Amino acid sequence: MFKQLGLIGCGLMGGSFALALKQAGLVERVIGYSKSPSTTEKARQMGVIDQTAESALLAVSGSDIVLIAVPVAATDATFRAIRHLVTPNTLFMDVGSTKRDVVDAARRVLKERSIAFVPAHPIAGKEHSGVQYADAALYRDRQVILTPIAQTSPELVEKAKAVWSAVGSSVRVMTPEAHDAAFAAVSHFPHLLAFAYFTGILQQADSEQFLSLAGPGFRDFTRIAASDPAIWRDILIANREEVLKQSEQFRGALGILEQVLRDCQGESLEALVKGVSTARSQWRMGLPRGSANT
Amino acid sequence: MFKQLGLIGCGLMGGSFALALKQAGLVERVIGYSKSPSTTEKARQMGVIDQTAESALLAVSGSDIVLIAVPVAATDATFRAIRHLVTPNTLFMDVGSTKRDVVDAARRVLKERSIAFVPAHPIAGKEHSGVQYADAALYRDRQVILTPIAQTSPELVEKAKAVWSAVGSSVRVMTPEAHDAAFAAVSHFPHLLAFAYFTGILQQADSEQFLSLAGPGFRDFTRIAASDPAIWRDILIANREEVLKQSEQFRGALGILEQVLRDCQGESLEALVKGVSTARSQWRMGLPRGSANT
Repeated sequence: MFKQLGLIGCGLMGGSFALALKQAGLVERVIGYSKSPSTTEKARQMGVIDQTAESALLAVSGSDIVLIAVPVAATDATFRAIRHLVTPNTLFMDVGSTKRDVVDAARRVLKERSIAFVPAHPIAGKEHSGVQYADAALYRDRQVILTPIAQTSPELVEKAKAVWSAVGSSVRVMTPEAHDAAFAAVSHFPHLLAFAYFTGILQQADSEQFLSLAGPGFRDFTRIAASDPAIWRDILIANREEVLKQSEQFRGALGILEQVLRDCQGESLEALVKGVSTARSQWRMGLPRGSANT
Repeated sequence: MFKQLGLIGCGLMGGSFALALKQAGLVERVIGYSKSPSTTEKARQMGVIDQTAESALLAVSGSDIVLIAVPVAATDATFRAIRHLVTPNTLFMDVGSTKRDVVDAARRVLKERSIAFVPAHPIAGKEHSGVQYADAALYRDRQVILTPIAQTSPELVEKAKAVWSAVGSSVRVMTPEAHDAAFAAVSHFPHLLAFAYFTGILQQADSEQFLSLAGPGFRDFTRIAASDPAIWRDILIANREEVLKQSEQFRGALGILEQVLRDCQGESLEALVKGVSTARSQWRMGLPRGSANT
């Protein structure tokens, strides 16, 4: 399908995309660039990329598909580095967890060349970052959200859908605004909550004793608190307005639960918990609520 | 080792204890009582218990070990039902997730007969309750906390340690107060947080869209939100003072993170997240912080 994938950012997300495309027989050659030459070299040695590029622009040159898989805060600089080679002959995508900031950067830097850029967010990842964790199956059975804007080429959106489907993802199209509101709710704000909760534990004198007693519930609840600090700094700051809106919703709900506890209102507490418990028991990943559990 | 286990409450926790004792060859016979006769009958049909008892008192009669595995709020009534047969010839234990209320009930109801009661909290469980989920391996590689009080028989504490060790648990001894403070921090308050977070999602107009987009991070973060409403009503109310103390610690930490976000202080945010991320990456279940990962 593609002659050459130009990979800008050879980490977990980019490396996994390259491996998935190779495994699906969708690409003949992968050329990769990373800010750190040792990362690029490691990716080459692992067979994730076939050739290293000296710059982001050189990774674009001669490629008919380009994936920008850099931290969201570096998207602007990457667009600047490659903009002269951005044309609709090539499908350009990113993998950023926030989309309004990426789309704004595209409008600002790529301008009319934004036609060639299809903003993408694969809902996949691991706690550990780095090309050594790259995995051809990372995107299989995961959702990928595309957030095209008015000037995005409809042909390239179709091509993007085909690529992600071919590596096993299911694709949805949304506006950047709806995307950022939804992911603030189900991903970004929970990370902030997990960070705040764990900070609240660490700041107590008995934290070591507490942590030595924690069990499987704690383990799962705090798993996302181990996430990469630089990546989450960028995501939380980029989407701070929506994250702070979610915090207001949450504070309202927590306040009610606390009041019910203070007043020892067992029945009200049970009713509140029951509503949540039922909804969570019915929820299935990647399915609208109430769908069959298949 | 034991002639007869008297099981009061044939649910997940009690049923798993019976199966574990049988598998370890520690008990000849299990007699069980549950409030609901259909539960007791199911436990008998499954081979979890060998004989059904018509009352809690009849489950104690002739038993040399008794496990009270009822919701914490029912502990007081259970003590009242069995107190005339509580003697130090028999090891009495419970499995409650809160201990101050259980110890208070023992002092109040059992009085000097509290000598025979060793309060226990195995840190184990599943989202689903009910004898159909009973599992002989539930307590293997899990911690069990014993919280004896001044009048508890030291011989029975040693016997309790031996029993839990024999089913694969590691045993720690703490005061009921230290226990409740620690479990408010690492278990009870996280449940309240998960309930509040999920409530905050459900109360929004776009909740279905949000939930259909949620991924693996959300799945793990909210797993405990599916917990049993009646059990958690009891736990949260019994330990509400410590839970509300934890909420204060948490609100302080959340407030700082929100302020840093509002002010777009990227460096401060990254530093805060880094401290948490490092601590969480080093944490291992059942080990003091900093222990080797073995």
